[in-house]
Amino acid sequence: MAVGGTRPGGRTARVRTAVLNAAGDALVEHGFDRLDLADVARRAEVGKTTVYRRWGTVTGLVADLLADMAEQSLPRTDNGSLIEDLRANARLVQRTLVDQRQGALFRAVIVAATCDSRAAEALHHFYAVRIAEWTPCVEQAIQRAELPPGTDPAEVIRAVSAPLYYRLLLSGDPIDDATAERAAQAAAAAARAGVYTTAGDSR
Amino acid sequence: MAVGGTRPGGRTARVRTAVLNAAGDALVEHGFDRLDLADVARRAEVGKTTVYRRWGTVTGLVADLLADMAEQSLPRTDNGSLIEDLRANARLVQRTLVDQRQGALFRAVIVAATCDSRAAEALHHFYAVRIAEWTPCVEQAIQRAELPPGTDPAEVIRAVSAPLYYRLLLSGDPIDDATAERAAQAAAAAARAGVYTTAGDSR
Repeated sequence: MAVGGTRPGGRTARVRTAVLNAAGDALVEHGFDRLDLADVARRAEVGKTTVYRRWGTVTGLVADLLADMAEQSLPRTDNGSLIEDLRANARLVQRTLVDQRQGALFRAVIVAATCDSRAAEALHHFYAVRIAEWTPCVEQAIQRAELPPGTDPAEVIRAVSAPLYYRLLLSGDPIDDATAERAAQAAAAAARAGVYTTAGDSR
Repeated sequence: MAVGGTRPGGRTARVRTAVLNAAGDALVEHGFDRLDLADVARRAEVGKTTVYRRWGTVTGLVADLLADMAEQSLPRTDNGSLIEDLRANARLVQRTLVDQRQGALFRAVIVAATCDSRAAEALHHFYAVRIAEWTPCVEQAIQRAELPPGTDPAEVIRAVSAPLYYRLLLSGDPIDDATAERAAQAAAAAARAGVYTTAGDSR
């Protein structure tokens, strides 16, 4: 680190951080359909032309926000057993979705993805990164003979999150501790029963 | 039925059908954020004042569309075993979500629900009706001793749909026959393992 705290690329990184934070704030307050680059520039105290030149469109900005969320995504924790790993993952998703700012932000980027293919690609990438991050917990469970060989890690990880997002986006039921616990237990039970093995597809 | 095919309330019902079909078309084409009552009236060939008087706002219209979708929702089929019932349910959800018009319509009403509390209530009601419709398949499975007593039917039904919506809204993975089959198998395996019993909450 250079003297005085100025790193090479420091300004560019600071501008990005400020703009992405401002974009997140705007999304949480007004949603995707009223996201506006000039408003984001004002909030970030960054020149409007900088924002237009670097991000171009609101969907370009949402895509970069999602790329940043993927980069910042908390690393998987190793808890020594399948159920403990899946429980940790379920609680992480639960905490994110019930957090007022983060829950609103996820709703906004999911809305953006339904309207725009670039935002959709960025959202799919975000979930691909999250799933890849947690893949080792399933691979280790197979090595420990907790799960049948050939279990698809992505399917197990998706199964943990799906009931929580179902409640956030569709049914409106609370996303409480019991929900997270059942999501982890259900994914583990289905995986143990061989539902997510590749052979399972042909049943 | 009265002579000449004119039933009491016939015109009102016809207007509602025309307006809700037009609202569905507009949502599929342009999404919720560009839904416009005057445009819907034009498409439905119904007077603008009729639409404004009866539905008031775009969210009022989306709420009524969802109420109608709940009324039109296909009844549960009885297939004689838990897995066959859950498979039928999973295939119904799969067919709906991969259908171009219906998939787009669901995306649009889900977006509406993230923006507006009245649309959100209508969406929650829609899923409550669908879950209630399929509750007997779990109750019968308990009577047949396929599932432990105390299994929460709503949790089992939600578990069948959740992975399909996860793919539609979040990960973008295909919603194919194998996905529907795994969703049914996973919900059945978790239910058999006792994950969805009321006692399961306190583990």
